[in-house]
Amino acid sequence: MTGFSDLGYARVDTDRESRQGLPEVVYGPGKRPEEITGIVTELLARSTGPVLVTRVEPDIAAAVDVPGGSYQETARLLAWRPAPERDFRLCVATAGTSDWPVAAEAEAVATAIGLRAHVIRDVGVAGIHRLLAASDELQQADAVVVVAGMEGALASAVGGLVSCPVIAVPTSTGYGASLEGVTALLAMLTSCAAGLTVVNIDSGFSAAMAAHRLATVARR
Amino acid sequence: MTGFSDLGYARVDTDRESRQGLPEVVYGPGKRPEEITGIVTELLARSTGPVLVTRVEPDIAAAVDVPGGSYQETARLLAWRPAPERDFRLCVATAGTSDWPVAAEAEAVATAIGLRAHVIRDVGVAGIHRLLAASDELQQADAVVVVAGMEGALASAVGGLVSCPVIAVPTSTGYGASLEGVTALLAMLTSCAAGLTVVNIDSGFSAAMAAHRLATVARR
Amino acid sequence: MTGFSDLGYARVDTDRESRQGLPEVVYGPGKRPEEITGIVTELLARSTGPVLVTRVEPDIAAAVDVPGGSYQETARLLAWRPAPERDFRLCVATAGTSDWPVAAEAEAVATAIGLRAHVIRDVGVAGIHRLLAASDELQQADAVVVVAGMEGALASAVGGLVSCPVIAVPTSTGYGASLEGVTALLAMLTSCAAGLTVVNIDSGFSAAMAAHRLATVARR
Amino acid sequence: MTGFSDLGYARVDTDRESRQGLPEVVYGPGKRPEEITGIVTELLARSTGPVLVTRVEPDIAAAVDVPGGSYQETARLLAWRPAPERDFRLCVATAGTSDWPVAAEAEAVATAIGLRAHVIRDVGVAGIHRLLAASDELQQADAVVVVAGMEGALASAVGGLVSCPVIAVPTSTGYGASLEGVTALLAMLTSCAAGLTVVNIDSGFSAAMAAHRLATVARR
Amino acid sequence: MTGFSDLGYARVDTDRESRQGLPEVVYGPGKRPEEITGIVTELLARSTGPVLVTRVEPDIAAAVDVPGGSYQETARLLAWRPAPERDFRLCVATAGTSDWPVAAEAEAVATAIGLRAHVIRDVGVAGIHRLLAASDELQQADAVVVVAGMEGALASAVGGLVSCPVIAVPTSTGYGASLEGVTALLAMLTSCAAGLTVVNIDSGFSAAMAAHRLATVARR
Amino acid sequence: MTGFSDLGYARVDTDRESRQGLPEVVYGPGKRPEEITGIVTELLARSTGPVLVTRVEPDIAAAVDVPGGSYQETARLLAWRPAPERDFRLCVATAGTSDWPVAAEAEAVATAIGLRAHVIRDVGVAGIHRLLAASDELQQADAVVVVAGMEGALASAVGGLVSCPVIAVPTSTGYGASLEGVTALLAMLTSCAAGLTVVNIDSGFSAAMAAHRLATVARR
Amino acid sequence: MTGFSDLGYARVDTDRESRQGLPEVVYGPGKRPEEITGIVTELLARSTGPVLVTRVEPDIAAAVDVPGGSYQETARLLAWRPAPERDFRLCVATAGTSDWPVAAEAEAVATAIGLRAHVIRDVGVAGIHRLLAASDELQQADAVVVVAGMEGALASAVGGLVSCPVIAVPTSTGYGASLEGVTALLAMLTSCAAGLTVVNIDSGFSAAMAAHRLATVARR
Amino acid sequence: MTGFSDLGYARVDTDRESRQGLPEVVYGPGKRPEEITGIVTELLARSTGPVLVTRVEPDIAAAVDVPGGSYQETARLLAWRPAPERDFRLCVATAGTSDWPVAAEAEAVATAIGLRAHVIRDVGVAGIHRLLAASDELQQADAVVVVAGMEGALASAVGGLVSCPVIAVPTSTGYGASLEGVTALLAMLTSCAAGLTVVNIDSGFSAAMAAHRLATVARR
Repeated sequence: MTGFSDLGYARVDTDRESRQGLPEVVYGPGKRPEEITGIVTELLARSTGPVLVTRVEPDIAAAVDVPGGSYQETARLLAWRPAPERDFRLCVATAGTSDWPVAAEAEAVATAIGLRAHVIRDVGVAGIHRLLAASDELQQADAVVVVAGMEGALASAVGGLVSCPVIAVPTSTGYGASLEGVTALLAMLTSCAAGLTVVNIDSGFSAAMAAHRLATVARR
Repeated sequence: MTGFSDLGYARVDTDRESRQGLPEVVYGPGKRPEEITGIVTELLARSTGPVLVTRVEPDIAAAVDVPGGSYQETARLLAWRPAPERDFRLCVATAGTSDWPVAAEAEAVATAIGLRAHVIRDVGVAGIHRLLAASDELQQADAVVVVAGMEGALASAVGGLVSCPVIAVPTSTGYGASLEGVTALLAMLTSCAAGLTVVNIDSGFSAAMAAHRLATVARR
Repeated sequence: MTGFSDLGYARVDTDRESRQGLPEVVYGPGKRPEEITGIVTELLARSTGPVLVTRVEPDIAAAVDVPGGSYQETARLLAWRPAPERDFRLCVATAGTSDWPVAAEAEAVATAIGLRAHVIRDVGVAGIHRLLAASDELQQADAVVVVAGMEGALASAVGGLVSCPVIAVPTSTGYGASLEGVTALLAMLTSCAAGLTVVNIDSGFSAAMAAHRLATVARR
Repeated sequence: MTGFSDLGYARVDTDRESRQGLPEVVYGPGKRPEEITGIVTELLARSTGPVLVTRVEPDIAAAVDVPGGSYQETARLLAWRPAPERDFRLCVATAGTSDWPVAAEAEAVATAIGLRAHVIRDVGVAGIHRLLAASDELQQADAVVVVAGMEGALASAVGGLVSCPVIAVPTSTGYGASLEGVTALLAMLTSCAAGLTVVNIDSGFSAAMAAHRLATVARR
Repeated sequence: MTGFSDLGYARVDTDRESRQGLPEVVYGPGKRPEEITGIVTELLARSTGPVLVTRVEPDIAAAVDVPGGSYQETARLLAWRPAPERDFRLCVATAGTSDWPVAAEAEAVATAIGLRAHVIRDVGVAGIHRLLAASDELQQADAVVVVAGMEGALASAVGGLVSCPVIAVPTSTGYGASLEGVTALLAMLTSCAAGLTVVNIDSGFSAAMAAHRLATVARR
Repeated sequence: MTGFSDLGYARVDTDRESRQGLPEVVYGPGKRPEEITGIVTELLARSTGPVLVTRVEPDIAAAVDVPGGSYQETARLLAWRPAPERDFRLCVATAGTSDWPVAAEAEAVATAIGLRAHVIRDVGVAGIHRLLAASDELQQADAVVVVAGMEGALASAVGGLVSCPVIAVPTSTGYGASLEGVTALLAMLTSCAAGLTVVNIDSGFSAAMAAHRLATVARR
Repeated sequence: MTGFSDLGYARVDTDRESRQGLPEVVYGPGKRPEEITGIVTELLARSTGPVLVTRVEPDIAAAVDVPGGSYQETARLLAWRPAPERDFRLCVATAGTSDWPVAAEAEAVATAIGLRAHVIRDVGVAGIHRLLAASDELQQADAVVVVAGMEGALASAVGGLVSCPVIAVPTSTGYGASLEGVTALLAMLTSCAAGLTVVNIDSGFSAAMAAHRLATVARR
Repeated sequence: MTGFSDLGYARVDTDRESRQGLPEVVYGPGKRPEEITGIVTELLARSTGPVLVTRVEPDIAAAVDVPGGSYQETARLLAWRPAPERDFRLCVATAGTSDWPVAAEAEAVATAIGLRAHVIRDVGVAGIHRLLAASDELQQADAVVVVAGMEGALASAVGGLVSCPVIAVPTSTGYGASLEGVTALLAMLTSCAAGLTVVNIDSGFSAAMAAHRLATVARR
């Protein structure tokens, strides 16, 4: 555990891929296009897997100068050298249409790192039959990512339906007492369905990376 | 709107019954037994309906000296002159066994003020079929009180199943991120099920009184 | 409880009308005009009642392409096929002029779903005689929606005057310690007037929908 | 501004009386009886006005060894050498019976420092006619202290009725969303009645001292 | 206490002047220029004292169409018919230059309602000698308004120096842990200097109105 | 998904085992010994796997009357019919000795439901070499549970060392700014190490159940 | 950086002394007397400097079985082998008598680790002349620890008087809006006096350890 | 301690340099260019050391009219008459590239006031070997400033590696549960590494000034 490249503005962790099975993923906010260009170039040269930059706005993405990448605007993801798909089925379920950008990030990152991602949209508990109709799809997944804002009750409902790992992603969808996602976050952490796990608000990225860790174990 | 009795330590609102259909309900905490005795005696003399004192601990209840009352320990309710039952069906649903004391208060107050209360216990969403099995019971109610702690998801699930008024009561059941009921409160306020209303944490009393207001309208 | 239409970006709950007496109401934020167009078209085809989209900004409203709708800018409401008025008198009282947009949403939604809504503006407690002068109007209502920001004291004052259901809507009117509506929310939840119920901050929509549930019971 | 007595465990501000018209008031919590005895003895020797110790529990009070003092248990106040009454009428109004201990502290401190204090109990806004019946009393005061917990709406109502200074004291009366007095505090700070001022939660002492500052000006 | 004018969009409290010595002050935010014009015209016709509108942005101010008014941009205050100066000396002290806009509002409102306001700027406790040099000025005031952001320590320092009423106004000056003024607010409420009172964050208006209440008593 | 037993005070979800591979786990707080006895008896009769009751105090545990159970005091766990060990290695790492009770619950529950749990205590980052010395142990695990209070930095450090799933459990260890575990919770949710997941404060139980979900996938 | 002793219940960081100049300090809460005995014995054997255990209640202290230690009850500190005094003058200033226990911990720890600690008590800003009278003492210190609760203004005042490092320790002294020390903490972090640093609420220990780090630099 | 210049809009503390070794530093936000020009001119005339203005946006900086200054855009710092470098080595370590602006402020201020500042970027704990590789650099510093957002774990890791003073600066880097820097702030305050000190969120300035205080002691 010793390798890194010191670019002055960044110490690129070139050892990450051998340690965790994926190159370091670059956090976009606060970085200038030249810095992203430099870090991505270094990661492509010093590793073999997918290279990703998250939360990149379109104008920044356009100014990054590294050939071979693709940009997904809703997911705000820049990606190079996506991994080949492996046999791990990740189901991403959303409570409402407004949660889509977060789900899009989860799906895009998951796909780029080789998971077989599938989205089920708009199955919030106010019309619980929509969720029940998706029971089979959910139960065939290796893991489920639940993306929900407002009160986040979908996580509990899914948690009670499936036996596989459930990763809950609270979103900032809503207003007033939703407190920009804090309410959904707290609700998911205190779910009456046992064994749910939770990641940061609006972090489709974290959910996909948690799924990657799961896939590492499932592979064995 | 002019009547009250000044007992020195309290101004008893003797006009309340004519204004709102029920005598003033006495909030127990911080009052000495003699004060409760005095206020209750005055209310019994100056009104005709049920006289209630809420949140009374057993030792205080035992020291209140007004004949004809009854005390329910789980509900912590002292009651005199309960109202005759009228035809308003109030269903009180709880998410878990631990929410029972709050539901007990809702049921006891509702009964004392003349509503036909009925409790369905332990229908949390982690096993949603328990709730679905109660659909008929719920749908026959004139109003439903949902009592739930932790993430409070039961309110959303019930809200999606019934068309009648739903009064959500968050409870302090849970620990850590449940923040003594604040999480359930926020979650219920941001429910994706439309038209739910919410009362204060652990306030079975408020839910029953809100139901009383409903019954006033339903009567017409 | 089985029907829904899967439009890919949304699962329209076409069973909602039979379950709850109203078609699903569409939450506008985060949806593109094409998506709103698609969902509304589906709801108009698969149900018979009013179809509403809430919190729609003017530019989005202008781009929604479904004939026969109307748009109310202050209320930010898109509506098709409003329900015929029924005999349920809903009084919407505001504490100040600045609370008007939230009251406007409550009034617009209530009217669209068939309630007889009536607004009394600017009766805050700093000049309590303005409220007392409206006592008769308030007491003749089947339910009162109280819309107030800052300290939200109007809810308690109204709660003490009327016997019918009171639905309190905290607003984000104010600054500093009003904490964008949280103070009014907490104050309304802890009102000394018994039996008030509360909905989310700035949610005129929720208040109208809660009134619709009340009207369902009052109809019997 | 130079005098103080260094007792080792305390630096007694013996200059306070000449600067502010009252000797330093001793904050009781965390002090041992011997320390209180020492400080009070020093203050009696080095000043001429009333000497007070606040928030003293009965067992501590009993162990303080300075002749000539009196102890009021509800107010938790130890006092020596009370000031002669001057012509400043302070009205202390409480929302409910449970707010009495805080009002008792305000009354006891105010009396000890020479104000003419008068208490009106139990005039919460849920029965607003009780407050209106006290209008004359309130309007004859030189200042009003409003003591209220829960949503604290009494402060706004009083603020709208009188033209004199209003000092609002939030109390921790209530449960759940009252957040141990924080809700009343925030509500009072955002009152729609102009020119209210607010002191710390449960601090009858602060209200009385603020009134003392008022009396200083009124005297001129 | 019965008069008000119902303009439809507002119920103007025309009784306020006789009750409290000043016409109702208009809260600007959320009101359209036509509404302000209408309310101000009504107040000028139905009362004799100063008519004020607070927190008005320049473009709105320019569109209000009532002759004889003046607008102060830093204070964001529109005023008609200022009161003649009376003999009440109000000292407004600020901790830093950045607190000036709030102090400007306090000064402008106080002047418009007839108080003799005087500002001392930039006497924060980091250089306490600047404050001590102003001791005489402060001690000659009838009341002091302390305007401070960040940790708000100036309020405690002034509170210890003067015997007259101190009204503390927390400001949102600062960043990070200053939490947009909440830190200064909490600090002022828990000051070790006895008898301070506090108003809402950034509310120079409230401080001036509290001073008006003081002046009412001081006049006698 | 239809089975449950209605005991009056509880609806036992007898379908849980077929849905999720484990019988319902009973949440102890708020249940009387007779209720626990009844529920456990029913679960033993209607399922085949381990039956657990969590957060049971010693005096309650002693009063539960069902033969064949065992009680672990530090973990506060009652267990009947523990599952045979399967080949899933769960490493539980604690930051400090004070985190032990939470880790004990995780270990006890994990063991009872058939996971191979192993604890590494006291490897907080203040002496990071203690953690590095445990690298091999950590890297051989199928999943790691990190139990840490205070600032919870251990989760990030472990997250950077291993590629397998990491379940972070914040604890209430600490004082002051640790806010009873909220600080560790927030810190773990915002870890710079990608793909961590988090459960509720002090919930060793949730971590073990999340691991059970992982084991379900790992088995395939 | 490799040494530690694995006692099973603890991994004692025996390398700490060579890395940081002091043996690991033991955090008392949650540890049994036998565990403290074991850890202290190991630290005494494997290092040469002072061995400390913090936040130990008297009954636990009495049960720890290692010869040669001393216990200070107010400071709740167990100490063995105190360091010889070196020439670093640490001044500990408290705002009020109630802050003494925290200052006592700072003084006791500082003394045990070889600093020359000196306490100035009760110099809160409500009587600022008491602080000014101590200016010389403060200015001769190598570092000042300011211990204050309530609004914590003493930190700003001291910060403005001295040029040496100031370590601010907020305490939980106070009630209501002091929020158990959070208000003082926030106030100290936003002080207008530049270059103050802050440690956790009530942590006299942290302040002393920060001073130890300072002394390390000052020694050169 | 008596000197200051009253410019009307500011009281410039001209005594600061003799008291604390540095002229007053000007806080930029809320000041107009003319005001900054006036204050800086006065400080240059009345003192001999470096004159700094912090948090100045480029357009304001361009409008300040005082010859001889320099502006650093990332640090938002205006500086005149920088101090000669003295022998105090300050190491500024950042967790990620996004923390750079805060580190830039720390470095720029430190350099301007004569410290020998050196930055190590991007050594977050997710790849702890990057930090360990910098151990020697860190251990040779006289003090370390740790700049980190998200969970702020770098502070604990550095605190465990070095014996010199550590000043932790939480940043607002991150989203969701990072709560704009509050999470990093709380985490740093509760670090398991002893003797860390903390300054306000995003305040590179405060860290540099705290280092200046350290250097004052180290000089002796």
